[in-house]
Amino acid sequence: MQTELSRKLGIQHAIFGFTPFPAVAAALTRAGGFGVLGAVRYGSRDELARDLDWLDEHTDSLPYGLDVVMPAKKVDGVTEADVEAMIPEGHRAYVRETLEKHGVPELPEGESGGWRITGWMEEVARGQLDVAFEHPVKLLANALGPPPPDVVERAHRHGIPVAALAGSARHAQRHQEAGIDIVVAQGYEAGGHTGEIATMVLTPEVVRAVDPLPVLAAGGIGSGEQIAAALALGAQGAWLGSLWLTTTEARLQSRALTRKLLAAGSGDTVRSRALTGKPARQLRTAWTDAWEADESPGTLPMPLQGLLVAEANARIQRFEVEPLLGTPVGQIVGAMDSERSVQAVVDDLTRGFESALTRLNRTAG
Amino acid sequence: MQTELSRKLGIQHAIFGFTPFPAVAAALTRAGGFGVLGAVRYGSRDELARDLDWLDEHTDSLPYGLDVVMPAKKVDGVTEADVEAMIPEGHRAYVRETLEKHGVPELPEGESGGWRITGWMEEVARGQLDVAFEHPVKLLANALGPPPPDVVERAHRHGIPVAALAGSARHAQRHQEAGIDIVVAQGYEAGGHTGEIATMVLTPEVVRAVDPLPVLAAGGIGSGEQIAAALALGAQGAWLGSLWLTTTEARLQSRALTRKLLAAGSGDTVRSRALTGKPARQLRTAWTDAWEADESPGTLPMPLQGLLVAEANARIQRFEVEPLLGTPVGQIVGAMDSERSVQAVVDDLTRGFESALTRLNRTAG
Repeated sequence: MQTELSRKLGIQHAIFGFTPFPAVAAALTRAGGFGVLGAVRYGSRDELARDLDWLDEHTDSLPYGLDVVMPAKKVDGVTEADVEAMIPEGHRAYVRETLEKHGVPELPEGESGGWRITGWMEEVARGQLDVAFEHPVKLLANALGPPPPDVVERAHRHGIPVAALAGSARHAQRHQEAGIDIVVAQGYEAGGHTGEIATMVLTPEVVRAVDPLPVLAAGGIGSGEQIAAALALGAQGAWLGSLWLTTTEARLQSRALTRKLLAAGSGDTVRSRALTGKPARQLRTAWTDAWEADESPGTLPMPLQGLLVAEANARIQRFEVEPLLGTPVGQIVGAMDSERSVQAVVDDLTRGFESALTRLNRTAG
Repeated sequence: MQTELSRKLGIQHAIFGFTPFPAVAAALTRAGGFGVLGAVRYGSRDELARDLDWLDEHTDSLPYGLDVVMPAKKVDGVTEADVEAMIPEGHRAYVRETLEKHGVPELPEGESGGWRITGWMEEVARGQLDVAFEHPVKLLANALGPPPPDVVERAHRHGIPVAALAGSARHAQRHQEAGIDIVVAQGYEAGGHTGEIATMVLTPEVVRAVDPLPVLAAGGIGSGEQIAAALALGAQGAWLGSLWLTTTEARLQSRALTRKLLAAGSGDTVRSRALTGKPARQLRTAWTDAWEADESPGTLPMPLQGLLVAEANARIQRFEVEPLLGTPVGQIVGAMDSERSVQAVVDDLTRGFESALTRLNRTAG
């Protein structure tokens, strides 16, 4: 499946894959798609540099991208400690009680609390960009609206197109005004941060709003038939995130989580603020339920909520406490029912696309 | 656009239109689609008989259908008065206060309170069926799950296929077991009663679940591109409801409501229990907001809520009290920005379908 955009980017299939795992990104790129590595979990520049070096060695000079999280609005001089100090004690107590209720052990002495807020701080994201520009990154994506103007300019000087996620036509237009090159229209059914407009409605709306910018459709896409639907809606490609979580190349911290993903139905996700403070679709668990319960103190705004629950999530994952164990994932989790290689997934996507097209052509005339 | 199902039903385009307006149903059928008249607003058999007679005269012997609301579970001997008595006084007071706050006048002496619960009672629905079977109805649809087994049998004896709406694969399978012939998979973004699963995910899931039954996709469909997407997902046609509300053949009670629909964006709807007690997507208004407010007593379960607010809705519509004025409608309301004839809409749908197909074929290979 080739579109104007996929031709321009020199890839074989208009399939873009967002993933926190270098092995998945590399495998997708080698399979003819466009692997995009999520940088948010990297605290240190060295770690990211090492993984990008690895990507360079495993992508046969084919294109890959990097997804950073960089708010366009900069807050000067605010440290992680400043943000920590803004968290009410009642919220900390609720986290402690919920973990105790489910018997979640403490982390062993010296083990890190896992994901911290650091990846969300502009300073860190800028450091990641320095690393990115020293590698042959072919696409820069930004999950939190458009990146700051100077970053867009810097990417363009390197000849790197910039993509940004949007959950509404208005957001997409704002991105366009900020000079970005590709809009990822992310529908309600997607995993992670989402708005309320479903992909079926959002995609054509965004395509119209930012014409002639190319649009990728995200949310609810896990089969070739769904890619055909996305292209029918005017997208120039599909942006998939959830589907890779159960590939053999993915490195989830927990086997129990993989089993939960394989068993989950499309109705087993929830849009919850429990993870970051903004609505993000994820597996529904006893943890997300706890934040909806009558006794819940309510979630805090971003970035406080993420900082509040970071260590708790690390403990839940570390000890595989099943009722609480979750991950951001979209409604297509219902169709993720076997572990396969990225190549097998891509073969399946292209086959499904061809068969949808054949079926559609039979309806014409 | 022709599918196995549309050929079988003898229509030119696989476009099914649900509408409370006989003039819309007739125009869609004449334009080569399949008009389906909603029967819920008919209190008396005579009124329905008169409108079906009119349809017979205005459809050139082409097929049309009837949509009834008949719960499969029967509650014997329960009258409307019994249900009325179950409504708490606090809820009645909240309705009165909200109407007063917005200065909504009383209905003139002798004017009816509009839509009542009657259409929801099995007795009434059965009376409507008697009328339907005296007319050349070519499809019987049921909005509340599968109709009772004897009704399915009776329809089949008349050679009439039965369709039922489903918001999940599990519901769809239950319908299949009840002997229905067509499943309408209605996604989250649809107007009226909806579940949480978006059309992009729901359609292929239902197609797989009830194979080989034909599936119509509903929710988020208002253009030919979206119909192409639905067929790519495996649907044998599209079921559209919202789009007809702003056609010139529609007879909304209020011009102000038409203006609101034309002005609304895709983000201006809400899934609310305010109308019937079950989540139904509709325009977001001061009325739906009132049921979400801190001082709200909360909505009542179906059918109590519908009965509670029936007269209030009639008054709001009668006097066009703009802040409160709403209607069930899907997220595609954002694309409904001009009043056109049903024929012009259908022409647009078929053109959009062809252009989506051309675009898709260019991506193949």
